[in-house]
Amino acid sequence: MAKGITSRETSYADWYNEIVKKAGLADHSAVRGCMVIKPYGFAIWEKMQAQLDKRFKETGHVNAYFPLFIPKSFLSKEAEHVEGFAKECAVVTHHRLMNDPNGNGVVVDPTAKLEEELIVRPTSETIIWNTYKDWIKSYRDLPLLINQWANVVRWEMRTRMFLRTAEFLWQEGHTAHTTKGEAVAEARQMLDVYAEFAEEYMAMPVIKGRKTANERFAGAEDTYTIEALMQDGKALQSGTSHFLGQNFAKAFDVKFLNQNQKEEYVWATSWGVSTRLMGGLIMTHSDDNGLIVPPKLAALHAVIVPIPKPGAEIDEAAMKIMAALKEKGISVKYDTDAKKRPGFKFAEYELQGVPVRIGIGKRDLEKGVVELARRDTGEKVQVPVDAAASAIEQLLVDIQNNLFQKAVDYRTAHTSSADDFDTFKEILEEKGGFIKAHWDGTVETEKKIKELTKATIRCIPLDNEQEEGKCILTGKPSKERVLFAKAY
Amino acid sequence: MAKGITSRETSYADWYNEIVKKAGLADHSAVRGCMVIKPYGFAIWEKMQAQLDKRFKETGHVNAYFPLFIPKSFLSKEAEHVEGFAKECAVVTHHRLMNDPNGNGVVVDPTAKLEEELIVRPTSETIIWNTYKDWIKSYRDLPLLINQWANVVRWEMRTRMFLRTAEFLWQEGHTAHTTKGEAVAEARQMLDVYAEFAEEYMAMPVIKGRKTANERFAGAEDTYTIEALMQDGKALQSGTSHFLGQNFAKAFDVKFLNQNQKEEYVWATSWGVSTRLMGGLIMTHSDDNGLIVPPKLAALHAVIVPIPKPGAEIDEAAMKIMAALKEKGISVKYDTDAKKRPGFKFAEYELQGVPVRIGIGKRDLEKGVVELARRDTGEKVQVPVDAAASAIEQLLVDIQNNLFQKAVDYRTAHTSSADDFDTFKEILEEKGGFIKAHWDGTVETEKKIKELTKATIRCIPLDNEQEEGKCILTGKPSKERVLFAKAY
Repeated sequence: MAKGITSRETSYADWYNEIVKKAGLADHSAVRGCMVIKPYGFAIWEKMQAQLDKRFKETGHVNAYFPLFIPKSFLSKEAEHVEGFAKECAVVTHHRLMNDPNGNGVVVDPTAKLEEELIVRPTSETIIWNTYKDWIKSYRDLPLLINQWANVVRWEMRTRMFLRTAEFLWQEGHTAHTTKGEAVAEARQMLDVYAEFAEEYMAMPVIKGRKTANERFAGAEDTYTIEALMQDGKALQSGTSHFLGQNFAKAFDVKFLNQNQKEEYVWATSWGVSTRLMGGLIMTHSDDNGLIVPPKLAALHAVIVPIPKPGAEIDEAAMKIMAALKEKGISVKYDTDAKKRPGFKFAEYELQGVPVRIGIGKRDLEKGVVELARRDTGEKVQVPVDAAASAIEQLLVDIQNNLFQKAVDYRTAHTSSADDFDTFKEILEEKGGFIKAHWDGTVETEKKIKELTKATIRCIPLDNEQEEGKCILTGKPSKERVLFAKAY
Repeated sequence: MAKGITSRETSYADWYNEIVKKAGLADHSAVRGCMVIKPYGFAIWEKMQAQLDKRFKETGHVNAYFPLFIPKSFLSKEAEHVEGFAKECAVVTHHRLMNDPNGNGVVVDPTAKLEEELIVRPTSETIIWNTYKDWIKSYRDLPLLINQWANVVRWEMRTRMFLRTAEFLWQEGHTAHTTKGEAVAEARQMLDVYAEFAEEYMAMPVIKGRKTANERFAGAEDTYTIEALMQDGKALQSGTSHFLGQNFAKAFDVKFLNQNQKEEYVWATSWGVSTRLMGGLIMTHSDDNGLIVPPKLAALHAVIVPIPKPGAEIDEAAMKIMAALKEKGISVKYDTDAKKRPGFKFAEYELQGVPVRIGIGKRDLEKGVVELARRDTGEKVQVPVDAAASAIEQLLVDIQNNLFQKAVDYRTAHTSSADDFDTFKEILEEKGGFIKAHWDGTVETEKKIKELTKATIRCIPLDNEQEEGKCILTGKPSKERVLFAKAY
């Protein structure tokens, strides 16, 4: 038997870490705060990347690649950007090692100090806008719709695999436009792209909204976000899209000649999602038996386990089913390892979250049937060998839909309203989840609530219902409820 | 008209840089030695990546991701590795910036010094083998066949876009095996994968060979290489595959229990190609009018230019051809920009290396034909509108083959034999290219020849003909000719 994992009830944090490690998604590394993304985890990330990349290209974007390093002085150019950012980061100060004169391996060569320190990019607005200055001269050069897949580094003190690591992988889109309206529309469009991807592929329902001024990206005029709810009642900010106004254009002096031959500053957006989505995927669906992967992102859709072990008749049925599945583009593995017992294999594939398990037993075969077990509900059905592939195809659709519906139901059950601060605290304490509450619109109140409860305003939902009310903390008037939660 | 570029005759180096910049492949950045890969260049790199990745997966490899940073002490663990490597590299010494107390932007926070410096990976053998130690316990865990797509940094003093940059993109395969034979076979297999990709997709003929001990990767027992010949008679090392013996396994103590329950050290390989291939692609095919991209890697296969400008009949013919091309999976753009004259467009697409240009003229259309111009030879043919798509499909095959054949012919014409040192120097001086010559097998002679002529031994070709002879420099006996050239 595969070793069990800690239950969510016992310790949600341990449960999460054990799934990440035991399902083979990622591992800690020798470098503080940096993880190793293991092949099985990386295969899921590759599927995410492929889908997102396709959607970016369908919406007119192209990929490019900008330098890993940012000259230190660039970070000072956009005042708000540096204020809210870029303090905890990896700083390159030297460019050479040398043999230790005392014979102990290598040491930094003190003569190879850089004139200006380089920062390992925590995000690329500055280096990219410094480049756009050379690329943009006229309205004919716009819009400029560029995306980059890259690694970035933020020196986080407390790290958790996928959710918060010193180095992580992401994509960052950086676009330039002639008008404010076009830039805002772009930022909103990319939020929609993220939301559709999250819901259709990750089966992770999200709420689209706008961040408060306090929670905005440093240097943005508006930050849009998709917020998902994890099974421990905490929210996960899963993707953001920023309308940057003309802030970076002004900081880096990026102007264009408009159709009337007049110079104007360019309007900008940036938007990104990261390997953090892997954390969201895990925490949205998985259970105490291990990982659950929605079929659309599964590296392996189905696995065939011979019971009790391979043999001529079982092999024949397996081959038949595999051929039929391959024709449908469904990936399948036939586990012929005779050294492991079926029960051990069941637990292993459950841990790894393979959506469908096909058990082929000798006795069942005499009746011409095999057993299909779905990972999400554990339900089992017997189907004729010839009908197995079609049944699995349908099952994968059902699993994808069921996972989404289950997550929606969880969120519905964990979304509350609070009209006073005591109720607010009580819900947070006992049930968690999203809380809709009135807020007076000030940064002070927002900070005070966070200080008292650890809950933050996740977003002001788009198309939010307008409703008069009183701030739960100060009692001051409010025109709409905002969405609070404790968050990762 | 697009501005012309410097001819190869006038300055090969300027010609190269101008193609890179004016065709929109890459740009210098604000960071010393780092380039920006522009969308058009990145689209070609993506096509290379997709093909290589497919071949890696077909040969059983999976992708993963390891940290960007390597603890300094790791680099001291494999003695030869650190000796031949890792001196010129980016060193991270601090993890925080702070506001300058004097108000001048940001400065490095002196209190945030790392206990141990981190090196931005110049290659990942050390961090990966330190991880493999935890992943490999038994022969059942082997072979471990992992590839990583990543950015790496080597602090080169003299940089040239794509060919030698401080940061570059690459893939690095790192495999672990139970036996020496299996590891050697893996290293050879990946060399074949590289060679096939280079010849079939890049249309760049390569010679497969083994490096001399002096030119081996630091830490390898054998380095295999593919060597291509550029149009200036210089060789380009285009990909390498290393048999690492048990060196890294011993340095990082990676052992496995074999089938007899005895502990053994693991056998290793590593192999990589990088954005340097872009440089090889450019220099193998392009001409004084600009870039030439082999159809299999072209981001855009064909472009339609209306002559003199769009109009109802021309639009109709263009739509017809575009629909037919799309059905064949051939990418095409209809350039309807009325502000640019056809001649300007011709020069632009020539510069960008689009394989086929389709000119649709009013008068030609009256005869029911359009003009196809191929980028490689400049030849033009008239074909009926209805036959255009099929003709283009065939043309793309012809261009791909022609580019390869042309490059093979160039290499044949620039591969010489030299039996004495004067002839050797004369050929190098006057004609360049590969020179087959006898060498006494010593590092001293190899270094001396390099010192005197700048030529290096590119490789000892695989399946090299055995032939008795005398070293061109020392006259000492030799059993085979090796391949010399000046190189990038």
